[in-house]
Amino acid sequence: MTKSVDFIFDFGSPNAYLSYHVLPRLLERQGATINIIPCLLGGIFKATGNQSPVAAFANVKGKLEYSRLEMQRFIKRHGLSAFKFNPNFPVNTLLMMRAALVAEEDGRLAGYVSAGLKHMWEDELKMDDPEVFVSAMNEAGFDGASLRERANDPSIKQRLIDNTNAAVERGAFGVPTFYVGDEMFFGKDRLQEVVEAVAGA
Amino acid sequence: MTKSVDFIFDFGSPNAYLSYHVLPRLLERQGATINIIPCLLGGIFKATGNQSPVAAFANVKGKLEYSRLEMQRFIKRHGLSAFKFNPNFPVNTLLMMRAALVAEEDGRLAGYVSAGLKHMWEDELKMDDPEVFVSAMNEAGFDGASLRERANDPSIKQRLIDNTNAAVERGAFGVPTFYVGDEMFFGKDRLQEVVEAVAGA
Repeated sequence: MTKSVDFIFDFGSPNAYLSYHVLPRLLERQGATINIIPCLLGGIFKATGNQSPVAAFANVKGKLEYSRLEMQRFIKRHGLSAFKFNPNFPVNTLLMMRAALVAEEDGRLAGYVSAGLKHMWEDELKMDDPEVFVSAMNEAGFDGASLRERANDPSIKQRLIDNTNAAVERGAFGVPTFYVGDEMFFGKDRLQEVVEAVAGA
Repeated sequence: MTKSVDFIFDFGSPNAYLSYHVLPRLLERQGATINIIPCLLGGIFKATGNQSPVAAFANVKGKLEYSRLEMQRFIKRHGLSAFKFNPNFPVNTLLMMRAALVAEEDGRLAGYVSAGLKHMWEDELKMDDPEVFVSAMNEAGFDGASLRERANDPSIKQRLIDNTNAAVERGAFGVPTFYVGDEMFFGKDRLQEVVEAVAGA
């Protein structure tokens, strides 16, 4: 049986981008697959009473400067030089995440996630602007207008709610969160432990 | 020249205990020393607007449970089975930290820190009770009453304030914080990076 890591995912988290680009390399030797589960981070925050570190620590002297330093160290260590912190942060990801489920329906989730992460965290696009979204997805080889339209389908909306609720039910309070079986790991700094859990599974 | 790691220290942090017991092993091959700098965590919090994770995340569903899980994983990985989470947490460490500077004056800081951490995080003592403090330090081979009395010396009080202010000046917002030269690392999960920084220094 192929081993698998569930990845509770939303484009809005820079650490989701960073993890997405590192975890596959680390898992290579295990032959494990990554199962991306599109969720709405805003929904997870609402359900758990959590908020982004940027909001939570805005008034703590030195804390955000240090977080940025840790992020830069991670980027340097893993050679992720294409990363740029999106100046539009925080970006509302409702459209992007609903459309992720459309892409999933079409069997194109992997390519969609890869494109969306590039738009958000390399190209610095304001992806909560529907016109920016449509044009960016067109350029990435998708039918942007169709994604946008089908994102309004009630079954798509409901699936995003269901995914989000299920993640909270499993214990998630943020993104990126990973599961190896029932074992939960939060954040980009747990990737090595995720790999060890896969190796031991 | 011997390489050295500055350790911004207060007994009140369980992660200070956990780091204290792991870092020396990790640094063994580097022949580096650890320079413990007694500070008042409450003073760092006050100066930076920070608070303990237990307070900050009390109302975030799942977050503290997950923090406990991470702590247990760390304990298991490093074989720190003597650790117990002090039921009196948070313990006011003002007396313990002032007395640390008395012990330092006497050239006995290392032994004092080791004893105090055991009292706090193995023996679960209520160390902000002066009688408990005196008796525990007596048993550990110190003159508890003398430590307690000398902790009131104005120069000792001032030194604790100075150490704490200097830590904040360097960018610390919590405990444990480590410095290798000017490079700052926060938390028990950065110990490997501290070692790498020492190796590269």
